[in-house]
Amino acid sequence: MSVKPLAVALGDPAGIGPEIVARAWDCRIDAELPPFFAVGDARSIEAVWDGPIAVITSPDEAVARFHEGLPLLQVADASTPVPGQPDLEGARCALDSLELATGLVRSCAASALVTGPVCKAQLYAIGFTHPGQTEFVSERFGISSDNTVMMLAGPDLKVVPVTTHIPLADVPSHLDSELICAKVRVTVRALQRDFGISEPRIAIAGLNPHAGENGEIGREEIDIIEPAIRQLREEGFHVTGPLAADAMFHPRARAQYDVAICLYHDQALIPLKTLHFDDGVNTTLGLPAIRTSPDHGTAFDIAGKGLARPDAMIAAIRMAAACVERRQAACC
Amino acid sequence: MSVKPLAVALGDPAGIGPEIVARAWDCRIDAELPPFFAVGDARSIEAVWDGPIAVITSPDEAVARFHEGLPLLQVADASTPVPGQPDLEGARCALDSLELATGLVRSCAASALVTGPVCKAQLYAIGFTHPGQTEFVSERFGISSDNTVMMLAGPDLKVVPVTTHIPLADVPSHLDSELICAKVRVTVRALQRDFGISEPRIAIAGLNPHAGENGEIGREEIDIIEPAIRQLREEGFHVTGPLAADAMFHPRARAQYDVAICLYHDQALIPLKTLHFDDGVNTTLGLPAIRTSPDHGTAFDIAGKGLARPDAMIAAIRMAAACVERRQAACC
Repeated sequence: MSVKPLAVALGDPAGIGPEIVARAWDCRIDAELPPFFAVGDARSIEAVWDGPIAVITSPDEAVARFHEGLPLLQVADASTPVPGQPDLEGARCALDSLELATGLVRSCAASALVTGPVCKAQLYAIGFTHPGQTEFVSERFGISSDNTVMMLAGPDLKVVPVTTHIPLADVPSHLDSELICAKVRVTVRALQRDFGISEPRIAIAGLNPHAGENGEIGREEIDIIEPAIRQLREEGFHVTGPLAADAMFHPRARAQYDVAICLYHDQALIPLKTLHFDDGVNTTLGLPAIRTSPDHGTAFDIAGKGLARPDAMIAAIRMAAACVERRQAACC
Repeated sequence: MSVKPLAVALGDPAGIGPEIVARAWDCRIDAELPPFFAVGDARSIEAVWDGPIAVITSPDEAVARFHEGLPLLQVADASTPVPGQPDLEGARCALDSLELATGLVRSCAASALVTGPVCKAQLYAIGFTHPGQTEFVSERFGISSDNTVMMLAGPDLKVVPVTTHIPLADVPSHLDSELICAKVRVTVRALQRDFGISEPRIAIAGLNPHAGENGEIGREEIDIIEPAIRQLREEGFHVTGPLAADAMFHPRARAQYDVAICLYHDQALIPLKTLHFDDGVNTTLGLPAIRTSPDHGTAFDIAGKGLARPDAMIAAIRMAAACVERRQAACC
């Protein structure tokens, strides 16, 4: 099987996406990165990096030219990107990059999709109707985002938030047993297929302090989470919980599970970013292809200043490549 | 000024309290612990430790006898404590120990109060009407618990939860600007007086994902938290926020503040215990005396097995002693 390159959408041209992709290319040998190509506007890279760009016209060229320069598939940007100054033309460029990179993965011209950070407010202003890139990518792959799972991963912790960008006050009413079961099923299948964990150990957090103390501090554990756990165990999954959320993220606790299922955004993201602020990866499970992303934003405040660390982008590229390898190995 | 010993209530006699206090005494020289005495039942220690106990009849004897054995002020326990098997007599013993130790601190026979872990369910069963030890101690010191603050602290992080043991669903309705301001005022004063931080830097978390994204994901930041921050700044406090809670606990973020004000239990306790599961200290701010406690529970499942780590008890004793020293220095 010929090696396909990974497609890396640069994200917002005024954010740190272009520089962290370029700096990831700088680290390609030490970090043992597989061939990848950038999708975006060359000028957004030139503004922040003086390394060589290898402009390509097709993904086929990326592998052969990867050591000559950062392979780049050009997407038109009507304005000139200025680091730290997002504008609507930049948002159009980011969306075009995402669309093109996703399409190349769908058509198997690229092996996996890695997406740089975008500015949602700017995307909404140009008429983007999806909550975020994850939902856009899911739709393009023909999968309802209800059937995909966002997993955040660092070397020491993997977390899945059952609910994401909703007000904290709305979290309890969004939870139900079937939602939790659905997320766990998708997660287990992906950990088996893409992460090589044959029998994933799943830890499910409680919602309330001390996991509700047997109903003394809230009933969601009894009414929603425990029934979900019983159902999942009946289906043969290795599930523990509901666990007191504050006591499940220290090193000895983390050694007991492969992934923590959390019930709301910050319950998942606080421990993940406390431990892995610089190298956390966001990955979408349940898609026909692999999609990863650095787990940070556009960081307009430091864009172009040489301060952005490429660690998370490097980790996202490495994770995508490792997942692709496992899927291909399973097919051979 | 004569040196007064610290009073350490052993907590539930069937929990890990007795053994971690005894093991803290074992470490007294290496950990440079000041003289302290235990308040509880000698049998609960004898069941789990074979070191020397120096039974005392008054705190006055504790300093002179501290290097002879673990000084212990005996509290009657009608039953024989069995590690890992809590009962109602044990709860009565724990409550008597707490009451006696608190009284000795109130009367200045002891310099500070350190409390071991208790079993709330057992305490409630014998008619204890306070939510926890903190509220009991506050009442005994004549301070409404509305005017005290629970702070959790480890070497790398201090957090204050604005709300504590209430269901997550009730958190938004419990928050108001004045509650946040009141907690910050007590916290700042204690950090200045007891922790030697002359101008404490306060970071206040947002409630919703990404601190609400300017009202896109919840309005509590705009309606409650930002007005509190404006008020506190007018009063001269150094306050930042509302911060995205997931991005405020990594090392570079923590370097920007002295204490994180969090809006609910797990927002504070998840990062604290992720970083400091074994050595976190719970301290009650705003009391006329110093009170600390290890930030963990009775751990009945490992009581008596030699597995309990004394780190948090040692840290609680050290923190109490350091706070006492600062208060005394300020008076001289």
